[in-house]
Amino acid sequence: MSLSVAVAGASGYAGGELLRILAAHPEFDVTTVTAFQNAGQRLVDVQPHLRSLEHLTLVETTPETLSGHDIVFLALPHGKSGEITAALDPGTLVVDCGADHRLESEADWAAFYGGDYFGAWTYGLPELPLHGGGHQRDRLVGARRIAVPGCNVTAITLGLAPGIRAGVICSDDLVAVLAVGTSGAGKSLKTELLFSEQTASAAAYAVGGTHRHTPEIRQNLTAAGGVGVTVSFTPMLVPMSRGILATSTAKLAPGIRAADVRSAWETAYATEPFVHLLPEGQFPRTGDTTGANTALVGLAVDEAAGRVITVTAIDNLVKGTAGAAIQSANIALGLPESLGLNLNGVAP
Amino acid sequence: MSLSVAVAGASGYAGGELLRILAAHPEFDVTTVTAFQNAGQRLVDVQPHLRSLEHLTLVETTPETLSGHDIVFLALPHGKSGEITAALDPGTLVVDCGADHRLESEADWAAFYGGDYFGAWTYGLPELPLHGGGHQRDRLVGARRIAVPGCNVTAITLGLAPGIRAGVICSDDLVAVLAVGTSGAGKSLKTELLFSEQTASAAAYAVGGTHRHTPEIRQNLTAAGGVGVTVSFTPMLVPMSRGILATSTAKLAPGIRAADVRSAWETAYATEPFVHLLPEGQFPRTGDTTGANTALVGLAVDEAAGRVITVTAIDNLVKGTAGAAIQSANIALGLPESLGLNLNGVAP
Amino acid sequence: MSLSVAVAGASGYAGGELLRILAAHPEFDVTTVTAFQNAGQRLVDVQPHLRSLEHLTLVETTPETLSGHDIVFLALPHGKSGEITAALDPGTLVVDCGADHRLESEADWAAFYGGDYFGAWTYGLPELPLHGGGHQRDRLVGARRIAVPGCNVTAITLGLAPGIRAGVICSDDLVAVLAVGTSGAGKSLKTELLFSEQTASAAAYAVGGTHRHTPEIRQNLTAAGGVGVTVSFTPMLVPMSRGILATSTAKLAPGIRAADVRSAWETAYATEPFVHLLPEGQFPRTGDTTGANTALVGLAVDEAAGRVITVTAIDNLVKGTAGAAIQSANIALGLPESLGLNLNGVAP
Amino acid sequence: MSLSVAVAGASGYAGGELLRILAAHPEFDVTTVTAFQNAGQRLVDVQPHLRSLEHLTLVETTPETLSGHDIVFLALPHGKSGEITAALDPGTLVVDCGADHRLESEADWAAFYGGDYFGAWTYGLPELPLHGGGHQRDRLVGARRIAVPGCNVTAITLGLAPGIRAGVICSDDLVAVLAVGTSGAGKSLKTELLFSEQTASAAAYAVGGTHRHTPEIRQNLTAAGGVGVTVSFTPMLVPMSRGILATSTAKLAPGIRAADVRSAWETAYATEPFVHLLPEGQFPRTGDTTGANTALVGLAVDEAAGRVITVTAIDNLVKGTAGAAIQSANIALGLPESLGLNLNGVAP
Repeated sequence: MSLSVAVAGASGYAGGELLRILAAHPEFDVTTVTAFQNAGQRLVDVQPHLRSLEHLTLVETTPETLSGHDIVFLALPHGKSGEITAALDPGTLVVDCGADHRLESEADWAAFYGGDYFGAWTYGLPELPLHGGGHQRDRLVGARRIAVPGCNVTAITLGLAPGIRAGVICSDDLVAVLAVGTSGAGKSLKTELLFSEQTASAAAYAVGGTHRHTPEIRQNLTAAGGVGVTVSFTPMLVPMSRGILATSTAKLAPGIRAADVRSAWETAYATEPFVHLLPEGQFPRTGDTTGANTALVGLAVDEAAGRVITVTAIDNLVKGTAGAAIQSANIALGLPESLGLNLNGVAP
Repeated sequence: MSLSVAVAGASGYAGGELLRILAAHPEFDVTTVTAFQNAGQRLVDVQPHLRSLEHLTLVETTPETLSGHDIVFLALPHGKSGEITAALDPGTLVVDCGADHRLESEADWAAFYGGDYFGAWTYGLPELPLHGGGHQRDRLVGARRIAVPGCNVTAITLGLAPGIRAGVICSDDLVAVLAVGTSGAGKSLKTELLFSEQTASAAAYAVGGTHRHTPEIRQNLTAAGGVGVTVSFTPMLVPMSRGILATSTAKLAPGIRAADVRSAWETAYATEPFVHLLPEGQFPRTGDTTGANTALVGLAVDEAAGRVITVTAIDNLVKGTAGAAIQSANIALGLPESLGLNLNGVAP
Repeated sequence: MSLSVAVAGASGYAGGELLRILAAHPEFDVTTVTAFQNAGQRLVDVQPHLRSLEHLTLVETTPETLSGHDIVFLALPHGKSGEITAALDPGTLVVDCGADHRLESEADWAAFYGGDYFGAWTYGLPELPLHGGGHQRDRLVGARRIAVPGCNVTAITLGLAPGIRAGVICSDDLVAVLAVGTSGAGKSLKTELLFSEQTASAAAYAVGGTHRHTPEIRQNLTAAGGVGVTVSFTPMLVPMSRGILATSTAKLAPGIRAADVRSAWETAYATEPFVHLLPEGQFPRTGDTTGANTALVGLAVDEAAGRVITVTAIDNLVKGTAGAAIQSANIALGLPESLGLNLNGVAP
Repeated sequence: MSLSVAVAGASGYAGGELLRILAAHPEFDVTTVTAFQNAGQRLVDVQPHLRSLEHLTLVETTPETLSGHDIVFLALPHGKSGEITAALDPGTLVVDCGADHRLESEADWAAFYGGDYFGAWTYGLPELPLHGGGHQRDRLVGARRIAVPGCNVTAITLGLAPGIRAGVICSDDLVAVLAVGTSGAGKSLKTELLFSEQTASAAAYAVGGTHRHTPEIRQNLTAAGGVGVTVSFTPMLVPMSRGILATSTAKLAPGIRAADVRSAWETAYATEPFVHLLPEGQFPRTGDTTGANTALVGLAVDEAAGRVITVTAIDNLVKGTAGAAIQSANIALGLPESLGLNLNGVAP
């Protein structure tokens, strides 16, 4: 059918990854790429890995340049999409990779982001199992405004939601610690993101519950379990560009035996095309998801500690951002959910 | 005074690091270096970074080659030191970097290592605060048999012990997740340790409480708090050679306010030469400890989650192994504790 | 049309990359994957990044398991393909990623490889400009036995051949120095390939003209220029898994002005789908070719030194191996040359 | 004797490395550290790896703050040291790690740097063998103004100078290609220096003879050989923070047999404490020089290509900058040349 597509924020990492995947999508045709500072440059001079898009030139990010497309993907800094998208046709599918439309609670928005609150859009995590039954995918059918989840949020949610929905783990006192790559921080010119600083070193940040993804994790896991959750979440920046490895743990629910735990995840993900529960005793590597839209989940029960441990690997730019955006767009438009998306990582 | 030193296992990573530090120590003189397969080779052909030791040749690791020294450092695979050291003079200071003499519980040894149990030696973590008062350093004075802690154990223990001793955090339901470098796995020829496999990827291992360092963590934190502890511990291998970043969390003890927490760590480490509590809001990078005997500790309280989070960075080969060995040897011999040890990391 | 495909050596890096690309090829259907030690295992347990091929199980590499396919791709150690392929049907397209059939000179084979010589097959570097006119691509049409070039060879040849064919650079005293990633060495269990050894370090190997790719470079550049060449070639292993950056230099031919040089490359690559000459002053990064079948070439003239310098970036596993194999197979079979091949790298 | 030392530019990489080494030097006492933007901050907040210098606070870089010390080390951007040092006492030893005083030719300065020319100081490469006999070290005795060489220059010079002085290689048509780490580019906030951009990628820069180190290489090799040289020099940025691996090649001089070559290097470096010629067939890794003041040199003759190839590994921040500065200062002051300098690298 060939739908026309605009990508806003095409000079950044999320924008670049959207374009890499879109360039191989059989039904989408990227006709407009926009940027702020880089407007006027050839796309390939800013994103030299995108050789198939040598014909595109970056234009200004405005309501005007984004209008008139079937689909608009936004990869903008937080707080930028609200005003821009207000002007777009309600029939246009708008998929926002930023945080502006993720949170359902205005109080959470105020506490963790601040500035104008633009309201929540349909949440783009198709595999999220819902408390009442079904998955978030059902809500995405026909949607025209989609909020793509935060990358850390996706990794933690996919790790814990099945157990919470099934009631085999406690929803209070969740603890998640993540090894995350640097591309999640974008192309920002900060000293701590320099290669010399970041290679051969690991560092935690946003320690103590201050990371902006925290309320979104709570929102998802509450949707899965039907009750509020308590979560401690600590990301550790490690020397890799892509990838999130989330070690997410929860107390075993009272009365649940270790042998009863696994089936909750098996049930939740049995037919998922992109979320794969690994066999007992296997745990994922982020490198096996590089460039792919997969999430690989490993599961163990530590009976001595009374905790279930899940380890989830994703590529933060694909299943964590651009792949999730396109997967959700496929669903919204009635296309095959996997269209144009890749199961195979680039390794080694 | 110049004491004669032998290093057993000199061809591995721990052995190499012992030699690097010993070569700069003003009172120690390395006269013997031993190995298994590499015996007969020049040391510098196996450890080409140790140019100041070009005069040394590797000999077989036997009781005979190790005898007749003032100090013997052992960097052998687990299970190897027991028989070898039985033959050494009781007056010789023997410092074992392996696991053979760390565990006080034979049942723990049987459950996590197996094979003959050789009994515990004086534990080489000088900064461990003890429940009854004082530190482990007091017990090291005059010791002639010292067991150097496991590297992950050191990072987690230094992160949590002050709070447990002070009673400001709960000793049950501890959760520690670590980003660890590959050198901790030694020079083993395993596919998963190849550069191609390990670069640009993170992976968890020993998930679910099976890591051999688990009982040693419990042993230390029990010594600090006087009561048993429960701990979930998950290491994640990340793309760096050296370094451990331990995110160790515990529930805030009942009745303790966030503002009351920090002083426990301040008190414990106020005069420590090598363990530094970072100012509020600062968290360490492993890269700042590379080649140094320091442990850098950051601390935060997540009141919403009801957890205290500590982040500890060490160089696993220095404060996690060779530096700890030499620091403990200094104490045992009545030398200045910091002699020959470095506070400054090699960065960037 | 869906042609049946077997991949021999499917457990290695070249085999894995063939499978990653083949899985997305619209006309090829992988039905058989073979290995030596790993036979009997599920492919995805050995190549965990290839989730779309979870249904395949590795079988033994024998003439029998490889027979009966339309196409056979070989990714075997040097010396292994000769006997195995002798038994295959002459009408089967056999594409060998190994060295066995690359060299036209038996003397070169004997000097650099040794063992039985199996003769040269049609050489799979479509873009090689030939002295008499035309490109190597012309010879690939209808071929049923194809030898894929060595990865370093491809990078150096693409850098220098246009200038040699055009006579603007001298063919004697070529000097090429390459920064190469570790995946070119395969999954071999060697100490120097361990992550701990290879990260944060660079090392040259096969210094002094001993690298096995040397005669193949001479063979190609002789084909381009019609006269013998002299080349000094030094690879430097650097801390990346994929990628070759070849700095290839040649003396400016007598009487040629700097301004006359560039057009030789422009002419050679004007219509190439995969080889891109970068604009004046731009030089490539290997990271922009990761996972793509592209070769990016930068060019400069150093008048003070009297040398032309070309810098060529490829992904050694794609344009350097698996992509070249599939590109050549497409040509041999009369399919569109670019079918199933990717222009866009995975970056950052 | 304890000489008072000031370090200007203490917040950068070269300044940090000077301080790391100076902190362990038995005769030097750092009393002043200066910076531009970071003045007023605690040193350890800017250089968190320098824990032994927690007592120092950065002050402004001015003639006043730098006056009154026995020694001043400058690690300033090019062009900054001229005016500042003019005001310092002639008896003060001033060691400049920048380029301002390296070039003896004002024309070269104008062509490659531009701006005011401040004249050459005594050149700080002690091991440079001189055409007339002796080494550059002889000229450093008693010097009070020393210019530390550029890091790439040191690697190439040490690789080629012995052969040029001995006349066994030709001094025209030298070709050097280097794999260089990112720390040589300093803490500059440039997109291409971000970890996400630079990891898993190699890129050449300053291709075609434009690199500012080019005239300095010519100056040194002319000093060694007594005749002018022609050199093509291309640096390739690779994914490591520290280290330079220089592959430097030259044509074998007419009438010289391969067997006659090696003794030129053996003679030149036989008694050097820091420059080590590796045995035949061995080539260095940069990782073995990390943090050490060593230069490791490997040598091969490619008779088919008619070229001698040398491979030199150094740590750009130590032997390439800070170590060379302190080594030269030791000589100038009549101290033991190796005082406070390390032969052993930090590996793995």
